[in-house]
Amino acid sequence: PRKAPPIENTLPCSLEDLYKGTTKKMKISREIVDASGRMTTVEEILTIEIKPGWKKGTKITFPEKGNEQPNVIPSDLVFVVDEKPHATFTREGSDLIVTQKISLAEALTGYTVHLTTLDGRSLTIPINNVIHPNYEEVVPREGMPVSKEPSRRGNLRIKFNIKFPSRLNAEQKTGMKKLLAS
Amino acid sequence: PRKAPPIENTLPCSLEDLYKGTTKKMKISREIVDASGRMTTVEEILTIEIKPGWKKGTKITFPEKGNEQPNVIPSDLVFVVDEKPHATFTREGSDLIVTQKISLAEALTGYTVHLTTLDGRSLTIPINNVIHPNYEEVVPREGMPVSKEPSRRGNLRIKFNIKFPSRLNAEQKTGMKKLLAS
Repeated sequence: PRKAPPIENTLPCSLEDLYKGTTKKMKISREIVDASGRMTTVEEILTIEIKPGWKKGTKITFPEKGNEQPNVIPSDLVFVVDEKPHATFTREGSDLIVTQKISLAEALTGYTVHLTTLDGRSLTIPINNVIHPNYEEVVPREGMPVSKEPSRRGNLRIKFNIKFPSRLNAEQKTGMKKLLAS
Repeated sequence: PRKAPPIENTLPCSLEDLYKGTTKKMKISREIVDASGRMTTVEEILTIEIKPGWKKGTKITFPEKGNEQPNVIPSDLVFVVDEKPHATFTREGSDLIVTQKISLAEALTGYTVHLTTLDGRSLTIPINNVIHPNYEEVVPREGMPVSKEPSRRGNLRIKFNIKFPSRLNAEQKTGMKKLLAS
């Protein structure tokens, strides 16, 4: 008998879920042919073990969990991981990217980054360099886990959006010229 | 008789050529069948009128200027405009983009852009605003001509690469905080 084509469903996951891993239970309802040959609808709970580091596009297949029909092998039920947008972090491969909005004064005189990681820890990263527009502070191993190599981790990359003053008065301009000429 | 497939050649043009327009003479050598049926090689000069505003990919076709062969219609000879990289300007559609490297002091206290246009004119553009990292100064109608609408022109867009000081001493930092707090 022929097999029905697979059915794909999106499985939206938060970045926290993909960082820490989690278990998702999905209730599905499907038609089956009972012993007497009649169609009945049954509900089932499928359990999906999200592993730390899974990426968008990861597929989990439940073989033959589609509807039953006479003379047809039921289709496979496939869940495709999708990554929900996160308020603070974006993901680039195994790296996490965060952009901090800072003032020009902070960029020039020193800034300390305070962040909460995806598993709820507080990170404090003091930056003593001058922060220029393309500056990137790399925090090793604070990125996403790598699902196939649990000993590896991506990096956390901190970028900066430097807010310039919208205007300076004549006195400020003179002061700037003096300060930056030395 | 069948026709031989067209022959494509790249025609590299400078941005100046595409801005002002120019005439290019191309010497080609091709085989022709003479009156007595013998093959001879002849040289020919083809003249290509580059119109102001032509873009990369513009094709100029010289019908049946390929080699002659018995019982075959000679191929068309096609020239495809390519744009040579320019030291100062890049092109985005009809706009010209230029990036100026300036110091932080210039960004904050005022800067005047000096540029030579693709047709050799001097442009002086004083900027009185604070120049932030994504600042773009748009100079209307100083971009590329539009080949099909000679009355239209793109814009010149000036971007800035702001060079920050690599470090500030304690005194400079104190001064900065004071200046930028007011």
